[in-house]
Amino acid sequence: MIYLDYAASTPVDEEVLANYCSVESKFFANITALNMLGQKENYMYESLSADSLNSLGFKNHDIIYTSGATEANNIGLFGIANKYSSGTIITTKIEHPSVYEVMKSLESRFNVIYLDINSDGIIDINEFEKAMTKDTILVSIMWVNNIIGSIQPIGDVIRIMKKYPKAKLLVDATQGIGKIRPNFNIDDVDMFTFSTHKIYGPKGIGCLIKKKGLELSKLLQGSHSQYNLRPGTFDLALISATNLAIKKVIANLDNHYNYLKELYMYLYNGIKDIKEVVINSPLKYTSYSCMSISILNKGKFVKSETILHYLEQSEIYVSIGTSCSSKLAKPEKTILALTGDIDRSYSNVRISISHLTTYEEIDKLIEVLKKYGELYV
Amino acid sequence: MIYLDYAASTPVDEEVLANYCSVESKFFANITALNMLGQKENYMYESLSADSLNSLGFKNHDIIYTSGATEANNIGLFGIANKYSSGTIITTKIEHPSVYEVMKSLESRFNVIYLDINSDGIIDINEFEKAMTKDTILVSIMWVNNIIGSIQPIGDVIRIMKKYPKAKLLVDATQGIGKIRPNFNIDDVDMFTFSTHKIYGPKGIGCLIKKKGLELSKLLQGSHSQYNLRPGTFDLALISATNLAIKKVIANLDNHYNYLKELYMYLYNGIKDIKEVVINSPLKYTSYSCMSISILNKGKFVKSETILHYLEQSEIYVSIGTSCSSKLAKPEKTILALTGDIDRSYSNVRISISHLTTYEEIDKLIEVLKKYGELYV
Repeated sequence: MIYLDYAASTPVDEEVLANYCSVESKFFANITALNMLGQKENYMYESLSADSLNSLGFKNHDIIYTSGATEANNIGLFGIANKYSSGTIITTKIEHPSVYEVMKSLESRFNVIYLDINSDGIIDINEFEKAMTKDTILVSIMWVNNIIGSIQPIGDVIRIMKKYPKAKLLVDATQGIGKIRPNFNIDDVDMFTFSTHKIYGPKGIGCLIKKKGLELSKLLQGSHSQYNLRPGTFDLALISATNLAIKKVIANLDNHYNYLKELYMYLYNGIKDIKEVVINSPLKYTSYSCMSISILNKGKFVKSETILHYLEQSEIYVSIGTSCSSKLAKPEKTILALTGDIDRSYSNVRISISHLTTYEEIDKLIEVLKKYGELYV
Repeated sequence: MIYLDYAASTPVDEEVLANYCSVESKFFANITALNMLGQKENYMYESLSADSLNSLGFKNHDIIYTSGATEANNIGLFGIANKYSSGTIITTKIEHPSVYEVMKSLESRFNVIYLDINSDGIIDINEFEKAMTKDTILVSIMWVNNIIGSIQPIGDVIRIMKKYPKAKLLVDATQGIGKIRPNFNIDDVDMFTFSTHKIYGPKGIGCLIKKKGLELSKLLQGSHSQYNLRPGTFDLALISATNLAIKKVIANLDNHYNYLKELYMYLYNGIKDIKEVVINSPLKYTSYSCMSISILNKGKFVKSETILHYLEQSEIYVSIGTSCSSKLAKPEKTILALTGDIDRSYSNVRISISHLTTYEEIDKLIEVLKKYGELYV
């Protein structure tokens, strides 16, 4: 089996899973209990949170643990928006559904601006600057795009936003964390979200890291746990596993980045001359973690599903867009924003790699893609 | 250590944890992926869901997996309420914060009626019938109360609600599932919620079981997963662990119930004559799983925290209300509704037992409670 869908989810690291199991079986009391068992867990939760923030470079933030990045984005975005009855919100055309669909639902009350991307797969920072006004309450721009892997200019966004202190910035870091170093001051980000299962940790937990003192309107109602923003029992074992997963990806970040860069270019060079393959991902600002391609058959783009199943015959597993929306037969919106070509968008296939990916696996993928033309065209 | 806080959380069953770990490490793809790995997981998810529904006795329902009962209650209650701009909602004064606080937040748009409880710790069914009108859109009544352990008359509620088909019923089953058999037709309940960590499973997952075809307004925005009601990546391993936890508690239900009934009465008889102890939990409709007591010192009620810490000195761990709200110094609202006595409510201590609780542990608790009078009064 050749797994090339690491952007959808990663295998859980053995050490991280062992850590989870140990904590889950030893510390079973409710973390919010006032008795000593709960208090001990609460102390561990605070220590683990401080350590995770420190590992990521945050000096002035709190962590709110959620069920994943989707809930984190919902709590953060609605948390700001629901404090206002009107105003302007700026986002991009290429956000993950957990941001994009929140924005769609806010259109009835707010002026929501969806920024285009240029041929490098990133927003035009001048367009962003023009869109910013004193009415802007919220900006949501992903760090690394989940389809084409382009790194958005978060540093420039922050620089411009400093002139508009009312506007708060949410950075969906799901595809950036553990893969690239931030080229911005992470402490300037108001809200930073991600999922543990994308960094070799278990599913079922994500984080909303928010600036201390930033007030959010509460989305889910119930207990007053987690800064009165996320009610309900939360799990020390998932928090501990998240901490270990963060520390491991941060410790190996440069090694993994350098390996992925070479591997990505090896794949790039291996398929760029196959005449049926069109590489959608621009190279200039890539994270080297995921590559979108489309496939031509006699000059016409082949549907994503066809390629997915063709690769499956060789036990190669890829994705055809974000897993979170892959059940809908829609043109992939990032490819549409990038190319304006609807047929090419319907042909998107995402290959996402990891430090666990081998050169042999990439060789096999290249070989199978080369054969497509021989077999079907 | 004597753990008597099973209503807050239960230790995870070893077999359930092993099942979780096995599934989490073997099936790491994203369950929503269209590739064969995702499809295989999706098949397992559907099989496990069908098996869990069957084990619980549901014939016409779907499961939506959430992060816990709190999120399940939020999705269910807002899911109905947000379809309307006005109307009447009926609930009780003794719901868990994850229902109660949702109700509080709905008061600005709806006529929310909070039913009282009688001296048996249950709602007066005639009061409920009087409150029901054609304007009622939603009823939320817990199955077993989390403080005093009283079983609410859900069967009578269902009988009355059949005359009002517009109104939908949510039963928070968190403290009932795996402890008592329903004395109502479970298939008549529109929405049924609980958390896996209360039935010897892992934390981080809960269920909203809802009638097929019942439409809910979507609370969290994002992908279209789980009947388009709960976006985001969900975890096959937590689902598998939930399934096994359900099957184990259902298989042992009668044994555990009979054991708890004896153990509860042993505790009851052991402390009822201690002159400092006031048992708050009425016996008539008890689930035999949790008992609330208050403590007197020279005729005045002692604060809950004092008792909690006194018991801790003997390594006995109890709770002082629902863990989810225990950090707030408020009178315990169920005891207040039951007794009308604010001092007694501030003195609430909850002892919750399990099939894992031994007679020796109860003997020790009785002994320590007896000593309180000798030491401090």
